Amino acid sequence: MKIIPGGVTAPKGFRASGLHAGIRKNKMKKDMALLVSDVPANVAGAFTLNTVQAAPVLWDKKLVTEGGKCQALIVNSGVANTCTGENGYHDAEAMAAHTAGLLNIDTSLVAVASTGVIGIRLPMKTIFSGIDSLIPELGYDIDAGSRAAEAILTTDIYKKEIAVTLEVKGKPVTIGGMCKGSGMINPNLGTILSFITTDLNISSALLDKVLKKDVIDTYNMVSVDGDMSTNDTVMIFANGMAGNEELTEEDDDFKAFAEAVRYINTSFVKKIASDGEGATKMFQVDIAGMTSKDAARKLAKAIVSSNLVKCAMYGEDANWGRIVCAMGQSGIPFNPYKVDIIITSVAGQLKIVEDGTTTDYDEKEATRILAEKQIKLIADMNIGEYAATAWGCDMTYDYIKINADYRK
Amino acid sequence: MKIIPGGVTAPKGFRASGLHAGIRKNKMKKDMALLVSDVPANVAGAFTLNTVQAAPVLWDKKLVTEGGKCQALIVNSGVANTCTGENGYHDAEAMAAHTAGLLNIDTSLVAVASTGVIGIRLPMKTIFSGIDSLIPELGYDIDAGSRAAEAILTTDIYKKEIAVTLEVKGKPVTIGGMCKGSGMINPNLGTILSFITTDLNISSALLDKVLKKDVIDTYNMVSVDGDMSTNDTVMIFANGMAGNEELTEEDDDFKAFAEAVRYINTSFVKKIASDGEGATKMFQVDIAGMTSKDAARKLAKAIVSSNLVKCAMYGEDANWGRIVCAMGQSGIPFNPYKVDIIITSVAGQLKIVEDGTTTDYDEKEATRILAEKQIKLIADMNIGEYAATAWGCDMTYDYIKINADYRK
Repeated sequence: MKIIPGGVTAPKGFRASGLHAGIRKNKMKKDMALLVSDVPANVAGAFTLNTVQAAPVLWDKKLVTEGGKCQALIVNSGVANTCTGENGYHDAEAMAAHTAGLLNIDTSLVAVASTGVIGIRLPMKTIFSGIDSLIPELGYDIDAGSRAAEAILTTDIYKKEIAVTLEVKGKPVTIGGMCKGSGMINPNLGTILSFITTDLNISSALLDKVLKKDVIDTYNMVSVDGDMSTNDTVMIFANGMAGNEELTEEDDDFKAFAEAVRYINTSFVKKIASDGEGATKMFQVDIAGMTSKDAARKLAKAIVSSNLVKCAMYGEDANWGRIVCAMGQSGIPFNPYKVDIIITSVAGQLKIVEDGTTTDYDEKEATRILAEKQIKLIADMNIGEYAATAWGCDMTYDYIKINADYRK
Repeated sequence: MKIIPGGVTAPKGFRASGLHAGIRKNKMKKDMALLVSDVPANVAGAFTLNTVQAAPVLWDKKLVTEGGKCQALIVNSGVANTCTGENGYHDAEAMAAHTAGLLNIDTSLVAVASTGVIGIRLPMKTIFSGIDSLIPELGYDIDAGSRAAEAILTTDIYKKEIAVTLEVKGKPVTIGGMCKGSGMINPNLGTILSFITTDLNISSALLDKVLKKDVIDTYNMVSVDGDMSTNDTVMIFANGMAGNEELTEEDDDFKAFAEAVRYINTSFVKKIASDGEGATKMFQVDIAGMTSKDAARKLAKAIVSSNLVKCAMYGEDANWGRIVCAMGQSGIPFNPYKVDIIITSVAGQLKIVEDGTTTDYDEKEATRILAEKQIKLIADMNIGEYAATAWGCDMTYDYIKINADYRK
């Protein structure tokens, strides 16, 4: 596997465009993106588990489960099309239909995504004219992909895209992706949208398997503030244009592809954590020596989700009591007297807890390690063979500022 | 039931004392409390469910389940005696033994509680001399109870105590209590400690029933930051000195007592939420029209636990999308299109959501209501008959300040 420049347009046969249609007030902010494959692609998706689901999420779930094919994706930022009732669902459908009409394809082949303010209707006139303008702007080049990646952001600071190549059954295959996450516009939520394209020829069943398995260890393991959006959407589109013999078995080629997808999604969740609301640093938590994979995941997630741990990271304070406590409140059984904790960054490595209690480490040394922008906390439970990783960011004054919409 | 002045010493036969023993550096801060009943009291307790449990919690759980009797309680603040291994347990036992020796009672009748820094040993010499000084200071008066209530605080701003009287089987019965919560000393956690005394004569079984049932709707329904302490302890002591005929049935007298305990615990959790770290306001969430009591509780708890809702409360922003989203991510099924949301305070009342979408309310009016120090959010799910209440506080810059221990 090799990392190459580009994003969603890197694989063969994918065009994209992105522009400011007028949904967002700030004219400098793009707010609509279009992604089109030359031929219908196999598609798999993973969606929010929130009881309240946005209209486009309901539309895409139907598309993924009923047809399993997709040729275009239309996305808007600025308005989430959530809590908008029947009308909202019709609006999502109209976005797909308008796009399908201009591309001369079936409406059921068009996926839809929205992110932004909850509880207000989409400005459909603006949406339609936005789609009209997106079509002639479609391009196969890197810049076209970048414009789409920019248009799906809300208050994310950085654009998030990536592309890799690998060889499958003797053919070069490319995978590209764009995502957004951790941004926020009042009054709404930090939604994760992630779209991955590939020219790989792969059966729908295997594509679905790759994504479902991957989400568990990537998107499900990142936490900015513990709130689950109504619009979270991860989709992967495989149009088969690499011309490889179709992947239908879990062979070595399949494993290489799954590994590349894992690389892309892991890279995205790290970007999401780093770009978390108000975040000044990203921290990774590695759980080792646990009794099962699932238990290890829950412990890792409990640590990155703890407000107290997140505040301690901001304070560059090796506050290990909070780490142990966060694990304890996960409800997962472990032996507190066997836990070792190590903190590490480019500035060094330090064991701060051994057998569940302090190593009487040097606090200054600990602070020096935690002062870096990328930190790793390793908790070895010493009771098993399983490991898991999660990612989070520190909690800062800016998190409060962004989310309090202070207007007193 | 009548509210009267006082706290844990209000019921007959309870003495208390509180003083600065030297565990905490600040000499103005009391750090040890002693509570003694003239005769052994029936005792019931509810403790943290964290996998990591403090040594005194382990000690008290044994006392409550094995003997069910208690005559004294020794508490220290400043050091939590958590993550301290076998030595920590021996230290807790030694605190009980030293107290028992001076009071000339059995060690197994002495409960122990600690709150403060995790991961360091108790300064036992200071603890022993503290106990020596607490004994001659014991008093039956209101001020003695207040000194104890002060000594169990960590960084709580306000002392929390209460007392009520009611008539049971023709005899006047008194209930008193003290608690602490939401304070924080680096590096540790916001622990809830709550101790209730009564001179009621009641069987152990019924006392346990009152407490266990009550905790579900009071202490379990408050959230400051979603982190569960390793030291949380709620205990109730009933010494029978009111001289009433023993309560052994769930009759009207029992119900009146249970109601009084509910009043005390509800009042305590409101105080804890109001005194939450960095909090500027307390908000109550009432869920109505839900399909079961448990589902209603989970929805209420999800709202008060959401960082995004807490930030919106600080911003005095009627950000109802966050409220709906927080309920949705609880995993509890409901119909989003039937939800009504009302905000209320002394400044007025406003329906902001009807049938799951905005009522196009006046934002200024909403902000005026949310500007108050005590707010209520009512979510009517309109799909059942059950209700539940939870309490939380806003999330502010000061929360970050307190918890980041900013030392860059």
